[in-house]
Amino acid sequence: MKTIVLKSRPEGQPTLSNFEFVEEYKTLTIADGEILLEVAYVSVDPYLRGRMNDAKSYVPPFKLNEPVHSGVVAKVLESKNDKFQVGDYVSGMLNWSTQQVSNGEGLNKVDPEKAPLISTYLGILGMTGLTAYLGLTEIGKPKAGETIVVSGAAGAVGSVVGQIAKILGLRVIGIAGTDEKIDMLKSKFGFDEGINYNTTKDMKSAIAEAAPNGVDVYFDNVGGPISDAVMFSINQFARIIICGAISVYNNTELPTGLSVQPFLVKNSALMQGFIVSNYAEKFPEAIQRLSGWLSENKLTYTETIVDGFDNIPQAFIDLFEGKNKGKMIVKI
Amino acid sequence: MKTIVLKSRPEGQPTLSNFEFVEEYKTLTIADGEILLEVAYVSVDPYLRGRMNDAKSYVPPFKLNEPVHSGVVAKVLESKNDKFQVGDYVSGMLNWSTQQVSNGEGLNKVDPEKAPLISTYLGILGMTGLTAYLGLTEIGKPKAGETIVVSGAAGAVGSVVGQIAKILGLRVIGIAGTDEKIDMLKSKFGFDEGINYNTTKDMKSAIAEAAPNGVDVYFDNVGGPISDAVMFSINQFARIIICGAISVYNNTELPTGLSVQPFLVKNSALMQGFIVSNYAEKFPEAIQRLSGWLSENKLTYTETIVDGFDNIPQAFIDLFEGKNKGKMIVKI
Repeated sequence: MKTIVLKSRPEGQPTLSNFEFVEEYKTLTIADGEILLEVAYVSVDPYLRGRMNDAKSYVPPFKLNEPVHSGVVAKVLESKNDKFQVGDYVSGMLNWSTQQVSNGEGLNKVDPEKAPLISTYLGILGMTGLTAYLGLTEIGKPKAGETIVVSGAAGAVGSVVGQIAKILGLRVIGIAGTDEKIDMLKSKFGFDEGINYNTTKDMKSAIAEAAPNGVDVYFDNVGGPISDAVMFSINQFARIIICGAISVYNNTELPTGLSVQPFLVKNSALMQGFIVSNYAEKFPEAIQRLSGWLSENKLTYTETIVDGFDNIPQAFIDLFEGKNKGKMIVKI
Repeated sequence: MKTIVLKSRPEGQPTLSNFEFVEEYKTLTIADGEILLEVAYVSVDPYLRGRMNDAKSYVPPFKLNEPVHSGVVAKVLESKNDKFQVGDYVSGMLNWSTQQVSNGEGLNKVDPEKAPLISTYLGILGMTGLTAYLGLTEIGKPKAGETIVVSGAAGAVGSVVGQIAKILGLRVIGIAGTDEKIDMLKSKFGFDEGINYNTTKDMKSAIAEAAPNGVDVYFDNVGGPISDAVMFSINQFARIIICGAISVYNNTELPTGLSVQPFLVKNSALMQGFIVSNYAEKFPEAIQRLSGWLSENKLTYTETIVDGFDNIPQAFIDLFEGKNKGKMIVKI
């Protein structure tokens, strides 16, 4: 079995040297109540970068020389736990290890009938879809006819946010980094407008043009100058959902930019950060709505699937270069 | 009669030359439904600065060569309106004119039995008290045992926020600009801790020391570097109330500073701007609670009273130098 541990904390952009592969030749055994798992799919996500810093936080940082963990789908190889049968698939937070033992806590059985791909459970019916749906509805409180801007729109969360916003009757503007992604936002995900931040000189004007009635909801995955530019177009009572700040996760200095406070007070606007687990009691409702839209073909998704356990660190690093479209998943 | 009009829009710090006194020698007459008012007290407030800019906003800016207006208490000299009798005092948004005619819309009769001073209606039972109470309770949602930081704590709103927070059982830390003000916060208003930002080199550490359990609520009147320093101490689920940003109102460049988004997402924290009129339907409840605390002597206030109509512009300018303690009022 192989395990990926955090060898050193990244300074700035993470590199392969921050990770170490540990190979062990042993047979894992399970006690009563435990299950033996073989990892099938591993989710790599921008938020993991924050946990690689040694910063005080209410989610403790990853420890050095211990396994990194993230959202994983795994197959049950052996079971001494009544809830799980050999051959079941489960999803949950698990180590970046090819095999591991679990007591089943925090794991959910994956139902292959609800969605076409097991990897969906890491995506649109997993943390990604829950993050998109709950951030948008609980903080964004979107109303039909309003305008939403989504940054990181071609990413895993962003592409789902845009589609849900369309279902709910909003005008949807996506910001992404290549023309190919912009095309995908419009043709595949039904966004009304797309702005390529790499080829647009004046983001402030581009956003104002794309949102002639102003911006009511901003779903922010990136932070930095893109988000600063959106502030100039927000409407009274705008809601700004801070889901992530991928553009600054690798900063070694504290990021600076536009002071948002004068914009918030002038517009009686709200800006709120969240992690999806804040809304855990709403997961069943959210999964039901997402499953419904998925089965009605109102919701679609894109995955970037990378092959092989050894490629997990590189797949993670590639997130910060925007190399993924939609959810980045490593298939073992 | 004299009227103060906005002669030119301030660039940066406002100066006396931005205002012009217009003297007219005429007798004002009233039609049916109207009242003739003599201005008694004029409130000068930092938010007026924003309205002097020619910026798109949902509150229209002051027009050049037209009267400035703000919260005023006035005496009824003549009345052809059944709701108001000669000799009544009213409060509301009125022009900076010694005398003026009104149809009574938006004016409230001032009840001298509810509070000792007429000027109170511009302060603790007026917009100031409502702003403090409604911003704190509606956005801050304070809970007993939590810690609050108030910036601009010796100002009109800040000193009331701190006292209400004490009544509600919070640990209260005030930030102000002189040792005299800090003394007043503790001795007169019952704050637990005070930080003088003019003599404190490391605001970040000073706030962390004063708030050993972190900051749950931040009532922000000032913006700028003081507010940036508070971000390092916020707790999970912190609520940051953006009431004003006096430190940057006179900036001629767009203010920049710490990017708050990474702090908000890391702490699932909320930051919300407001103006008190957003909560107009809660005014009666708020006034009832404030009056109650006032009559129980749980709430006190300080006013800086300047004498004379001609001194209104200078009193307004002095706000930005922090020359006021508590509410700045001009007595005519």
